[in-house]
Amino acid sequence: MESTTPRAIVRYGRDGSSLTVETGSDLLMTESPVEFRLADVPIAVLMRTPGEDEALGLGFAITEGIVLGPGEVDTVTAVPGSDQGDRWQIRLAPGVQVDPEQFRRNLYTSSSCGVCGKASIDAVRVAVPELPTGPSLGPELLLGLPDAMYAAQTGFRRTGGLHAAALFSPDGELKVLAEDVGRHNAVDKVVGHAARFQWPIGESILLVSGRVSFEMVQKAGVAGIPVVCGVSAASSLAAELGDELGMTVIGFLRPGGFNVYAGDHRLV
Amino acid sequence: MESTTPRAIVRYGRDGSSLTVETGSDLLMTESPVEFRLADVPIAVLMRTPGEDEALGLGFAITEGIVLGPGEVDTVTAVPGSDQGDRWQIRLAPGVQVDPEQFRRNLYTSSSCGVCGKASIDAVRVAVPELPTGPSLGPELLLGLPDAMYAAQTGFRRTGGLHAAALFSPDGELKVLAEDVGRHNAVDKVVGHAARFQWPIGESILLVSGRVSFEMVQKAGVAGIPVVCGVSAASSLAAELGDELGMTVIGFLRPGGFNVYAGDHRLV
Repeated sequence: MESTTPRAIVRYGRDGSSLTVETGSDLLMTESPVEFRLADVPIAVLMRTPGEDEALGLGFAITEGIVLGPGEVDTVTAVPGSDQGDRWQIRLAPGVQVDPEQFRRNLYTSSSCGVCGKASIDAVRVAVPELPTGPSLGPELLLGLPDAMYAAQTGFRRTGGLHAAALFSPDGELKVLAEDVGRHNAVDKVVGHAARFQWPIGESILLVSGRVSFEMVQKAGVAGIPVVCGVSAASSLAAELGDELGMTVIGFLRPGGFNVYAGDHRLV
Repeated sequence: MESTTPRAIVRYGRDGSSLTVETGSDLLMTESPVEFRLADVPIAVLMRTPGEDEALGLGFAITEGIVLGPGEVDTVTAVPGSDQGDRWQIRLAPGVQVDPEQFRRNLYTSSSCGVCGKASIDAVRVAVPELPTGPSLGPELLLGLPDAMYAAQTGFRRTGGLHAAALFSPDGELKVLAEDVGRHNAVDKVVGHAARFQWPIGESILLVSGRVSFEMVQKAGVAGIPVVCGVSAASSLAAELGDELGMTVIGFLRPGGFNVYAGDHRLV
């Protein structure tokens, strides 16, 4: 299955004071469900853009705390007979024990220790490694990141719809980029790719094409990424979690400026 | 808890060729978890923007198929002692039976009948009432909706971050608007409000501030809303589900034009 899907459309527009109508074709971002299994037990069904499912499965397992790192995962492989690679099996490394039933029942009550912002932050904090004190961030470098990411967003440029996440080195080099209909999936794909090479991921900059919410900071934190930037707004709880983790959280990062919501000590 | 949260920030910007740095305050969209219970069993923890939690709980229960309509819900009330209204109890109407354990285990394998786009569509189709054949949509009316919604998005104008969903009558009158850090929540709040007055919601237009994905069409369909528009892109599966349900799906709805991805028979 392709990451984009052509479709016949009707386009209405304005031409001066009159309306125009034309039929044509448009490229849509492909959205399709994928199931991940652990020890043959389905643990998640995600709506995602097909492609990079192995990275998505690994990244999801890591950033949701199902495994403690890439070393606990042996393989992520398509289930034989799944028609279009829409069922994937996560196999744990020898000796690693995870109870998928336990996880399965608790996923969406992951704040089960209590329901409030503080409890949510506490639950994440225990799963996050100590973040590196660096990197030092020059404003000029940061201001150049959105254009660098945009240049690599081939799916977005074709559909106008796909979210992106990009991992940059401290000197602004684009290391990994992923696109997906789901913004969480884009981050998981990036983490899944990068974690295979370095764990925890460490000194680097994560840029997301949308907003920075709690779960974005959670996912970055669990992966050991100390800087999270968004092209759009940050939420209150994302900023608070950034404080707690010692993470730099930046919002509205655009060529003309940005806001630092947490961790401004990394700015030089 | 307020829907926006003030926060001290550092703002970096450009002034001609030089960089500017200033400290100041910014209003962030508030993000905070809420738990919904059914028969004292927690069924969901959502990250949401506080406010309108009663509507959120009712709308979520409806659009996720936990109940078949607002008539099956008696009350949605804050659990006594929950500090900031962050735990809510959904009480069913007399005689209505729902097994929360059943639901709890199956929520995120809701495509459990099979994992592919077709199976997902089939699973939704059985939960969707027959949609009305109307309303007839004039392009001029549609082109005016984004500005009408924007005028009512007080939270977005203050934070630059909150998603919105708006329900319009067939003649373009704004009936309900809701804002939330989560775009699904914004739709659930709108459905929760509107369902109390008319069920199924019927001839009306749902406009969302972001993209139109599968779950947006699902939620609108379950509520009986025949037209879904997004300011941004639509996904492939959203358009396909629109076909199946006989729903009109419109993307990139902006003052200068829009694309019709499904159900163009309602355009006149």
